[in-house]
Amino acid sequence: MRPSGRMNDEMRSVSIEAGVTRHAEGSCLIKCGDSQVLCTASIDGRVPFWMKNSGLGWVTAEYGMLPRATHSRGRREAKAGQSGRTQEIQRLIGRALRACVDRSALGERQIVVDCDVLQADGGTRCASITGGWVALRLAANVLLKSGKVTTDPVKDHVAAVSCGIYGGQPILDLDYPEDSEASVDGNFVMTSGGRLVEVQTSAEGETFSRDEMSALLDLAGLGTQALVAAQRDATA
Amino acid sequence: MRPSGRMNDEMRSVSIEAGVTRHAEGSCLIKCGDSQVLCTASIDGRVPFWMKNSGLGWVTAEYGMLPRATHSRGRREAKAGQSGRTQEIQRLIGRALRACVDRSALGERQIVVDCDVLQADGGTRCASITGGWVALRLAANVLLKSGKVTTDPVKDHVAAVSCGIYGGQPILDLDYPEDSEASVDGNFVMTSGGRLVEVQTSAEGETFSRDEMSALLDLAGLGTQALVAAQRDATA
Amino acid sequence: MRPSGRMNDEMRSVSIEAGVTRHAEGSCLIKCGDSQVLCTASIDGRVPFWMKNSGLGWVTAEYGMLPRATHSRGRREAKAGQSGRTQEIQRLIGRALRACVDRSALGERQIVVDCDVLQADGGTRCASITGGWVALRLAANVLLKSGKVTTDPVKDHVAAVSCGIYGGQPILDLDYPEDSEASVDGNFVMTSGGRLVEVQTSAEGETFSRDEMSALLDLAGLGTQALVAAQRDATA
Amino acid sequence: MRPSGRMNDEMRSVSIEAGVTRHAEGSCLIKCGDSQVLCTASIDGRVPFWMKNSGLGWVTAEYGMLPRATHSRGRREAKAGQSGRTQEIQRLIGRALRACVDRSALGERQIVVDCDVLQADGGTRCASITGGWVALRLAANVLLKSGKVTTDPVKDHVAAVSCGIYGGQPILDLDYPEDSEASVDGNFVMTSGGRLVEVQTSAEGETFSRDEMSALLDLAGLGTQALVAAQRDATA
Amino acid sequence: MRPSGRMNDEMRSVSIEAGVTRHAEGSCLIKCGDSQVLCTASIDGRVPFWMKNSGLGWVTAEYGMLPRATHSRGRREAKAGQSGRTQEIQRLIGRALRACVDRSALGERQIVVDCDVLQADGGTRCASITGGWVALRLAANVLLKSGKVTTDPVKDHVAAVSCGIYGGQPILDLDYPEDSEASVDGNFVMTSGGRLVEVQTSAEGETFSRDEMSALLDLAGLGTQALVAAQRDATA
Amino acid sequence: MRPSGRMNDEMRSVSIEAGVTRHAEGSCLIKCGDSQVLCTASIDGRVPFWMKNSGLGWVTAEYGMLPRATHSRGRREAKAGQSGRTQEIQRLIGRALRACVDRSALGERQIVVDCDVLQADGGTRCASITGGWVALRLAANVLLKSGKVTTDPVKDHVAAVSCGIYGGQPILDLDYPEDSEASVDGNFVMTSGGRLVEVQTSAEGETFSRDEMSALLDLAGLGTQALVAAQRDATA
Repeated sequence: MRPSGRMNDEMRSVSIEAGVTRHAEGSCLIKCGDSQVLCTASIDGRVPFWMKNSGLGWVTAEYGMLPRATHSRGRREAKAGQSGRTQEIQRLIGRALRACVDRSALGERQIVVDCDVLQADGGTRCASITGGWVALRLAANVLLKSGKVTTDPVKDHVAAVSCGIYGGQPILDLDYPEDSEASVDGNFVMTSGGRLVEVQTSAEGETFSRDEMSALLDLAGLGTQALVAAQRDATA
Repeated sequence: MRPSGRMNDEMRSVSIEAGVTRHAEGSCLIKCGDSQVLCTASIDGRVPFWMKNSGLGWVTAEYGMLPRATHSRGRREAKAGQSGRTQEIQRLIGRALRACVDRSALGERQIVVDCDVLQADGGTRCASITGGWVALRLAANVLLKSGKVTTDPVKDHVAAVSCGIYGGQPILDLDYPEDSEASVDGNFVMTSGGRLVEVQTSAEGETFSRDEMSALLDLAGLGTQALVAAQRDATA
Repeated sequence: MRPSGRMNDEMRSVSIEAGVTRHAEGSCLIKCGDSQVLCTASIDGRVPFWMKNSGLGWVTAEYGMLPRATHSRGRREAKAGQSGRTQEIQRLIGRALRACVDRSALGERQIVVDCDVLQADGGTRCASITGGWVALRLAANVLLKSGKVTTDPVKDHVAAVSCGIYGGQPILDLDYPEDSEASVDGNFVMTSGGRLVEVQTSAEGETFSRDEMSALLDLAGLGTQALVAAQRDATA
Repeated sequence: MRPSGRMNDEMRSVSIEAGVTRHAEGSCLIKCGDSQVLCTASIDGRVPFWMKNSGLGWVTAEYGMLPRATHSRGRREAKAGQSGRTQEIQRLIGRALRACVDRSALGERQIVVDCDVLQADGGTRCASITGGWVALRLAANVLLKSGKVTTDPVKDHVAAVSCGIYGGQPILDLDYPEDSEASVDGNFVMTSGGRLVEVQTSAEGETFSRDEMSALLDLAGLGTQALVAAQRDATA
Repeated sequence: MRPSGRMNDEMRSVSIEAGVTRHAEGSCLIKCGDSQVLCTASIDGRVPFWMKNSGLGWVTAEYGMLPRATHSRGRREAKAGQSGRTQEIQRLIGRALRACVDRSALGERQIVVDCDVLQADGGTRCASITGGWVALRLAANVLLKSGKVTTDPVKDHVAAVSCGIYGGQPILDLDYPEDSEASVDGNFVMTSGGRLVEVQTSAEGETFSRDEMSALLDLAGLGTQALVAAQRDATA
Repeated sequence: MRPSGRMNDEMRSVSIEAGVTRHAEGSCLIKCGDSQVLCTASIDGRVPFWMKNSGLGWVTAEYGMLPRATHSRGRREAKAGQSGRTQEIQRLIGRALRACVDRSALGERQIVVDCDVLQADGGTRCASITGGWVALRLAANVLLKSGKVTTDPVKDHVAAVSCGIYGGQPILDLDYPEDSEASVDGNFVMTSGGRLVEVQTSAEGETFSRDEMSALLDLAGLGTQALVAAQRDATA
């Protein structure tokens, strides 16, 4: 029995509100249960220096958490610097989003996706990817509408969900109490057609079998469908 | 004529939504026109080490701005560190809030007020003080309700508003376009009874007269009354 | 009764010795009572990059304190980095000095004013502004004499003095024992004609009235006259 | 055809020389093809502060690369700090090694495994895990021999190998030229019995299918058997 | 012929003014030609943690240079951090001063000697040692007078002078123009009796003979006598 | 009697294995007793910016120590930053190597010599200089062979050895137990012909005589001959 009382393959409620900020070219507030992430996409005319004159664009991501997004207050990242965990997460978000981008169609410009956690209850890196895609989609729409870009650089949906093994059972979309007790914890990034973009599955002080790996991949496929549907609604 | 079309003594609309986060002991989202600041108050059982065994409590504040809170994206503070401007602002917020606190009644504990700007359009340090007071008030209510504190440590309201000289005229509550063109820019922190807590008035490349100083103080008094009323509504 | 035995409107003795260093284009050692600040002005042919090709010059300031300038030794800033207080002070000095500068007459060059406290007894930021102006004046003279600049870029005197409320009384030019006990502490930057450049008045855990604010402004006007006279003597 | 001329399921030659340093409680030099990593295990009587009085031990890892371990010289990490990539790798090594450790049997002490790359040709994080296990095994032997620990805290072998998709084909144990051209790149940590500890598979700008995921897991199982055999030889 | 016109064995004029600051237990302003260093000695009741309960005291030094102590303005160390050169110098000053200290007589307390260069013209590390000794001597007098220490912890004089090879000739006490053109540059720390404490002689892109080494040691002995005499005068 | 049982003028065994890494233009592993240093020389087509268009080349060095190179594990330098000791050492290595380089013959390019201590038992800075010379020599050979350089830029051998006073006796080539107990500790850098490049001799809490200085220089001359012979063998 999950602490949340959910079925093993039951997601938390998802809501994505698009266009929530005035300045960013694309933005949304995504809520996955009690996790809330503000995602913005900013168009930058310059690419990183090592990419100049390549004709290709770039998509990168940054991730942060407000000090009191968590149960007990954490040190402000502007004072403590970015932890290894934070850097690992934002590298993951960037790779995930680039998997759906035609960098040639984007042209020599960069889109920076900022994912800032206002409230945390597990699964914030996955919510960041799912919400980050919406912000990216909206920023690409701005480029298309302005005529700066003529071919859509966003080729497909990308969404992410966590799955893990809790009490010996594979479960979908872990909240914080589940996440902190799970023996195996995985993050799965997939496209609308169910192809894989990234699989990160770790045991902490445990191991798991090939069959369990398969069960997690099955659950992730289910979850992705629901998230892609929410992305479609938000950007319709 | 102001860019905003407002009268010289006309505030922007103010809204304060209390209790917006699940984890913090006190919180609100304050909107002053298009400036939006998420304020949380966190109760910490420990005071700074130089205050131990004094029997007195402490209130401190931290301030931050999301990278795309502004018109063009700024560097993430977790990478760039806190700028001198940021440190100056958070010191101001802390001093302002302490002016209304009975540190003896608070007892040997600390309240940390975090003010994070989700969207900026001028006046964010003032909005942080006004909203920070609401978060502080709610956290103090938690302490009173729990019996950990028996005398109310929050003695009075504290609110802040900016006033400046724009086009030769004293005006109230500057938005970003006004702020960036003003010859004199001031921030005024006051109590519900109109007493002064902090006055910071600077000219950049200009000077101003004693009469102009008086006009700014008059406008600040007006603005404070409106802000205190909004605080009362939010915490009723 | 003030700890120093001075009258409420009595300044400490002021001495300004100009031309004390061999390398800097302008310099002075200013002593306000026991506070001693070495001020140098350095002419730099380049302006900050965001000002290039504007035809305008820039004046900026940096402030520091030797480790044993104070009663007990502080951490060396080269190890500890600049504190928020230090950054706040040097931003103030820079704004204050720019108020008297014709940036167009200065031309596309920068003057960096360094204010280093050799001995501290309260009021070091004010002494830095008053002494910094002397260093700036002398550096401008070098530019005028060399013909690099044809119109005097220094339009007026700028000087600063602290005033505060101590034992319920408004007093002028606080030394350290007064400063650490004052309920209200203000720094006032003014021109030779008594116009205001910057007003920073803060209460710590207290409030003050409009009448008290007026009394502090009156005292500041008195103090400024004495400081401008000392500047005139030093640069005659 | 692989650049290395190897078969798709062919590993590079592996050599593990144990006991190469005089000071460390456990050490080895592991060579996987041209990748060379010096691994040491240091026993520390203290655990991290958040683990005190838990009766449990801890295993952690740090990873580094000498400046000229790579084709062109990189910035020295002592000057540049640890990159996000470095932090991600050392967190992975630590988690992987902890999967085989009985923290209760270890007792309240910490083993720090340092993995320093002397020469890099792809797969250094996997070599670090495989070699790190040998250093850990030898340090545990020291604890057992000294009687400080009575139950063997190392429960099983842990080894790691990279697999990826190159030219549309799943291949085993990528060297640098293969790694830099692969469309999918994965790191697999497994036990001697073939159970999974960690799976990290990422596409960069691509996606992959469930069948390809399975093929990579099959290859990883093969590779792990060879690595475990080499670990057995080195610690016999 | 030396740029300064001095004889090869001729020192610059030396002046040491003791007791120049109000707060420090010992202080002096030393001028060696145009090099000026403010030296203070601060008594600290605590020793570094690794020396606790040893019954021994410690003497350490810190060195800094004001931004415009030099011909062209350098970056403020509070922003740039301490350079390798600065750290090397302050380690040298500390070692030199400890050579004359009876750490057992000092008792478990620390004396921190700060050497801050107000104006630089070569030889500032040597001036810091010579002046630092005066500050240390005066601080030890305070300890003796107060009865906190009963045996004099300062056993002998320590002074330092630079010697080098310029134009093929060994010369004494290099100023900046000589220092920047010398083929060999050495710093010599000696006691009043001519015993050696530290010898640091470097060629930059050159080499030197044993005979030249001897000539430099002879000159250093001469210079030390003059410096010790100046120390005696200042502390009489 | 030395702890090592060696005669006062007896070196430890020295071995230098050249060409140990695949990527670097020059490399060696030097062992002086139990001290082991991996030295690499990297050719960089760019010189530091302040040397551009001078027609001259540059040689610089960096030094590091693996965390468990020492008896007890030290903090990883990538986390702790470079200590003052480390910076002092790498500045010494760079100066020493430049003493034998014809910077004009080298042409406008830089050679970076990295010295990383794999195992420490005293004398690592001297081993770094002696081994660094071998790496530099081999990199220069690559430049000569490729025709990029036509005159040999390496004019002479440079090698270094430590000498000190231990138990009142001058001794050669101190190992760690000797080094930590010596009253005087010196590092001597010399050429094949016995000319001096750098002399650094320090007493910690002691002093020494001119005669002792001479005895140390004599021993250093002996040691250098042995080291130069080992360099010749390794690069033959």
